Amino acid sequence: MGPKLPQALAEARNGIRAMVPAGSRVLVACSGGADSLALAAAAAFLHRTGEISAGAIVIDHQMQPGSAEVAGRAAEQCRALGLDPVAVIEVSVDGSSEQAARTARYAAFAQGMDATGAARLLLGHTRDDQAEQVLLGLARGSGTLSLAGMPAARGPYLRPLLSLDRAATEAICRHEGLEYWEDPTNTSGAYLRNRVRHEVMPVLRAVLGDKVPEALARTAALARADAEYLEALASRTLEEVLCTAAAEQPATELRMDLTRLRALQKPVQSRVLRLAVVRLGAPAPDFERLAALTLLVQGSKSAGPVQLEGPVAATRLAGTRLPRGATAQLCLDAAALKAVES
Amino acid sequence: MGPKLPQALAEARNGIRAMVPAGSRVLVACSGGADSLALAAAAAFLHRTGEISAGAIVIDHQMQPGSAEVAGRAAEQCRALGLDPVAVIEVSVDGSSEQAARTARYAAFAQGMDATGAARLLLGHTRDDQAEQVLLGLARGSGTLSLAGMPAARGPYLRPLLSLDRAATEAICRHEGLEYWEDPTNTSGAYLRNRVRHEVMPVLRAVLGDKVPEALARTAALARADAEYLEALASRTLEEVLCTAAAEQPATELRMDLTRLRALQKPVQSRVLRLAVVRLGAPAPDFERLAALTLLVQGSKSAGPVQLEGPVAATRLAGTRLPRGATAQLCLDAAALKAVES
Repeated sequence: MGPKLPQALAEARNGIRAMVPAGSRVLVACSGGADSLALAAAAAFLHRTGEISAGAIVIDHQMQPGSAEVAGRAAEQCRALGLDPVAVIEVSVDGSSEQAARTARYAAFAQGMDATGAARLLLGHTRDDQAEQVLLGLARGSGTLSLAGMPAARGPYLRPLLSLDRAATEAICRHEGLEYWEDPTNTSGAYLRNRVRHEVMPVLRAVLGDKVPEALARTAALARADAEYLEALASRTLEEVLCTAAAEQPATELRMDLTRLRALQKPVQSRVLRLAVVRLGAPAPDFERLAALTLLVQGSKSAGPVQLEGPVAATRLAGTRLPRGATAQLCLDAAALKAVES
Repeated sequence: MGPKLPQALAEARNGIRAMVPAGSRVLVACSGGADSLALAAAAAFLHRTGEISAGAIVIDHQMQPGSAEVAGRAAEQCRALGLDPVAVIEVSVDGSSEQAARTARYAAFAQGMDATGAARLLLGHTRDDQAEQVLLGLARGSGTLSLAGMPAARGPYLRPLLSLDRAATEAICRHEGLEYWEDPTNTSGAYLRNRVRHEVMPVLRAVLGDKVPEALARTAALARADAEYLEALASRTLEEVLCTAAAEQPATELRMDLTRLRALQKPVQSRVLRLAVVRLGAPAPDFERLAALTLLVQGSKSAGPVQLEGPVAATRLAGTRLPRGATAQLCLDAAALKAVES
């Protein structure tokens, strides 16, 4: 269970205070669920005291019967809390996937911020959502970044409730007399996230203890710090191993000094290779393709080409394939991409 | 399911070949279970061809009725495979915990290597064991290293089967006509690991797919590489921020340059602080204590002391508490430890 009532509400308010500069204008994204209504209540308090100026945006995904009433009821409660302005935005989702709904939602958020002059949008994700996100990332198995969960802050999007659990937000709603809506799709098992929430998490808690969501959320925070540090280091290192001038933009070919590339330690080397591929406009290589690329760099067997998605091809160049006196290079060529595009 | 028969066996042999230099002497740790019998079969093949010299060590933990027969039957099958020497070692476990059994087992392994002149010991852990280890680490939530699972190699201990799953080792046993023993404690739910295996993992597979163990094992490998890189970096960085001479051993006090410490990025800074505490002989600080130590370094509030386990105390020193002209320092003092020990 979450902290007792006044404390949960105080934590929610302090979570917002820690992320939002005094006097600035924010929007709360409110679905009508317990998490985002609790967030709306905390933001409304700071709005009433004049610490910030807070409105709300309610998205009607129009994916379920009755969605307009749910949105309307959420907006009504936001207005009653004193948030201003409060807007309901209807979006049409292209398809029925969680990803499509997300894309439509974020487009509406951007539109809402534009329309109201709010520089920040507050999202009600809790520690429990974060724990689920880590489990979903684990299943991908693509390394530290996939475990990093959702960022507390990315651009204008802030998540002030990541240290509260879902029970705490429900308690805040009861305390504030808010009627929160329980999404029937939350229990339908339709989405992977919901199956993680309702099937995986209870077993994890039963076996490993009730502190599991907290431990998962902490793992996310630590993994994110590690991942961001290593990404930044790899980004600087890529510049150092490049043979081609960085000015030449947009690049259709990247050449890297093979000796320098080989001297890098594995966590940095693999990130440098991934960044180079992405810079050519190709998707980030998966684990198998990155392993093939690493083998090519180590130079024990074939000199390539290693075909990547995108399509980018990687080749190891040495000796007669280079100008006299040049050191060995790894060449990433997006020529195939050019051919497709032209 | 694992790869088809001949391939699983070939993979097991190649796993050993990749880790054990030709001509060297190894011991296989064999419990009589499918994993370690499959490993014994693969090692025995290389022993018969003369690539390596392989014996086996069977530990009788004497924790269950009939353990002597299980050990005897395992040893018999190892001998029939041609492994030489094959020894059964009875250990007495102090208590009934998994940790106590582990300690006794590794002491016996060391003894067995000494007695036979084997420089390496092969362990039969599979990808499924690794996946379970990652989940156990997740529940601790203590960062990248806790997700790193079991190392493929640590000192003389090698795990050549980490890329095979349990089903593959069972298939190898059937192919080789080996009778493997299924540990009743594996299904008793007595140990946390067994509950992870029999309760958590089936749900994870059902919800997130059968590739989950593979993804978890891959996460472990990537997290280990990241963790080892950052640990090594922090170890070098600690030397750079120390004010006290490293020669002064054993240290009872460490002083660090606060300006340099503050300039470090978070993933490096927190590891440097942890290493410094451990160097004074105290246990690694947990998440909360490390957060308190970090707050002390940032210097926004109290100047300490922050009491750590061990007992080590941390204090921020500046101004009149330092020689004239000295820059601000973080002081870790193990004086309390001295007092306890003397």
